[in-house]
Amino acid sequence: MHFMENYSTIAGGITAPKGFKASGIAAGLKPSGNPDLALIVSDVEAIAAGVFTTSQVRAACVDYCRQKLQQKASAKAILCNAGQANAGTGEQGWQDAIESSQLVAQALNIAPEAVLLASTGVIGQRIKMEALRSGIPQLVANLSEDGNDAAAKAIITTDLVTKEIALETMIDNRPVRVGGIAKGSGMIHPNMATMLSFVTCDAAVSTGLWQQMLTVAANESFNQITVDGDTSTNDSLIALANGQSRTPAITDMNSKNAQTLQTMLTTVCQHLAKAIARDGEGATCLVEVQVSGAPDDESARRIAKTIVGSSLVKSAIFGRDPNWGRIAAAAGRAGVIFNQEELRIVLGEYVMMENGQPLQYDRSAASNYMKQAAHGTYLQDDTVLISVCVGNGSGKGIAWGCDLSYDYVKINAEYTT
Amino acid sequence: MHFMENYSTIAGGITAPKGFKASGIAAGLKPSGNPDLALIVSDVEAIAAGVFTTSQVRAACVDYCRQKLQQKASAKAILCNAGQANAGTGEQGWQDAIESSQLVAQALNIAPEAVLLASTGVIGQRIKMEALRSGIPQLVANLSEDGNDAAAKAIITTDLVTKEIALETMIDNRPVRVGGIAKGSGMIHPNMATMLSFVTCDAAVSTGLWQQMLTVAANESFNQITVDGDTSTNDSLIALANGQSRTPAITDMNSKNAQTLQTMLTTVCQHLAKAIARDGEGATCLVEVQVSGAPDDESARRIAKTIVGSSLVKSAIFGRDPNWGRIAAAAGRAGVIFNQEELRIVLGEYVMMENGQPLQYDRSAASNYMKQAAHGTYLQDDTVLISVCVGNGSGKGIAWGCDLSYDYVKINAEYTT
Repeated sequence: MHFMENYSTIAGGITAPKGFKASGIAAGLKPSGNPDLALIVSDVEAIAAGVFTTSQVRAACVDYCRQKLQQKASAKAILCNAGQANAGTGEQGWQDAIESSQLVAQALNIAPEAVLLASTGVIGQRIKMEALRSGIPQLVANLSEDGNDAAAKAIITTDLVTKEIALETMIDNRPVRVGGIAKGSGMIHPNMATMLSFVTCDAAVSTGLWQQMLTVAANESFNQITVDGDTSTNDSLIALANGQSRTPAITDMNSKNAQTLQTMLTTVCQHLAKAIARDGEGATCLVEVQVSGAPDDESARRIAKTIVGSSLVKSAIFGRDPNWGRIAAAAGRAGVIFNQEELRIVLGEYVMMENGQPLQYDRSAASNYMKQAAHGTYLQDDTVLISVCVGNGSGKGIAWGCDLSYDYVKINAEYTT
Repeated sequence: MHFMENYSTIAGGITAPKGFKASGIAAGLKPSGNPDLALIVSDVEAIAAGVFTTSQVRAACVDYCRQKLQQKASAKAILCNAGQANAGTGEQGWQDAIESSQLVAQALNIAPEAVLLASTGVIGQRIKMEALRSGIPQLVANLSEDGNDAAAKAIITTDLVTKEIALETMIDNRPVRVGGIAKGSGMIHPNMATMLSFVTCDAAVSTGLWQQMLTVAANESFNQITVDGDTSTNDSLIALANGQSRTPAITDMNSKNAQTLQTMLTTVCQHLAKAIARDGEGATCLVEVQVSGAPDDESARRIAKTIVGSSLVKSAIFGRDPNWGRIAAAAGRAGVIFNQEELRIVLGEYVMMENGQPLQYDRSAASNYMKQAAHGTYLQDDTVLISVCVGNGSGKGIAWGCDLSYDYVKINAEYTT
């Protein structure tokens, strides 16, 4: 990745920021025996912020975190179970969540109120509490400043790859770092949140500001991806900032340091969001839709997300078919008013429509452009870019998704059987 | 079909009502050479109502009909071209629409203002005007009181079957009939309209009332189906009522005769809507979702449509996988507030969740229920029924869709290539 900004990519993911440890083990929660339990711990109490699913059907851990963060916006630990969703499990699911936080607290010798929770897996299934009870001591024993990879592996389910990133910049001559991991490849259409993502940071930030920054970052990243239009019951984005960089506290959104931190946080979230979209179930390429000329940014983002979420657009991209009419149709139904006579559609470098008029273009070259993306290198040159301009407004927005392949249906036709 | 009401199904589709003729021919608009041009004509000027796509990207015929009906809510003829969508074609597309109406008017010796238009096909392609010009004389020559089948065949594109129905009742001892045809199997997620559907009626109804009745019928039928979540640029539902039954004019929505006519009109539209959903691209069964207990009917319809439109629910049904968690998740993200602890989910006769708690049920029997539907007789016993209750409100709603199969992707990956 190339950044114009004054920061750089570093190794280490969520354990790159100072004062964070992580671990991941196979606790027997997944039938496959793959790693399924992750723990992230800050040496000191960290400012905590979260964005969660807006679904009316929620996992117990979502209700637990929301309630917890409303009472006190700080935490020391995040436990993530990738075996069972613990959603649609009623009162018993809530009791399992409470016990999970207590088990972690005991093992770490901290207060249960300092523990946050996340889970993913099949909806309607309780956490296998016996396996969880047995696993936690080993999970705590494995905590390490090199634990990022183990944690990133332990939070995934149908994902083909792990997702991680870390960035570093200098603030007042001291290094400040933001790191993140994420999971997700199906049921991806986050609404005010993502599937699961955990972000760590060693800057010192005030509580309200950290939540504000996370919300901004979520709106420009996780909320702009879609794989299948389905919002999960468990979507959770949790971010901890522990101040261990020993840089001056950031308390004013308009300060230069706040802007730098916001950019890094948004970049981390965008990288993870794109990685989730690219790893969408059955996907063969990343699709990026850039919309400009809309009345405002929110309208542009809505149009972009509608196009990238259209099953017909996604199927056409899988077929390497430059069927731009479907792009126009999806833009038109996004719920944003525009004049179709100002519509401009570009696929890669091929201008297909201008001023609402269809143009001549090289069909087979446009098809080849999509074929090349499908054979490109992961998250480097595997992107099909669609640019749409809907007028002369100042609103801009980007959304990410993937194509719709036979494998999507295959993966999801027999998920629980 | 069995009706509780005092009307019966009759043969004849759109030419069952008195004073209507129709025709359909292969005019060379489709590359396949299949029938592609249809004409519906009323002997006398008929009251006309229409519901059209709300997309910002619209076919010229949609703008034409909307403008025409605003000026005068009556018409004698509807011309439908199933070769090219004539959407995204700019000023030239508009000129082609105007010429189309003039050609029909000349051939029928009526005013161009008495002609309505509809089209379907690939977006961004102009109507093949030369073929249209050559075809119209034959189309008019073929007009017949037995022309329903030919018209029904000439309006379809990727549809596997034609869609038609006619109902008859007695009003003041005279027969009154409503007939309809429809097309659609992809890009089906109508928004205030459907793909293409034409309804004829020989009752005498006042202008405003007819439009009001059609809007009610559309909201409980075409607006409650989805195949792929994509709203077309060409969605059009047009209904003509020509008064040739010679029954007293229906002018009051609260009258018994108005209620009878409304029920027949809604039933015709629901039959056609279900037929479109069942014929969804690649579908192996019809899916009906019934929602009750919502705050109001609109909320219930929204939840039902969200569930029936979920790619994950659709994939699970194709896999005959009773993965009710996806049903719960889709209900939760519909944008309607409810208490998840009151959620009840039933698949066929299998109760899977009650009071937000998962229940034990016979997995393989539930899977067999879905298998049987997929082998059922078309529109008779090929329905997978999902019942969801979200509380104790009085709101009820139904939506229809289909499963998501490999063939959906296959059909749509290479549509224009």
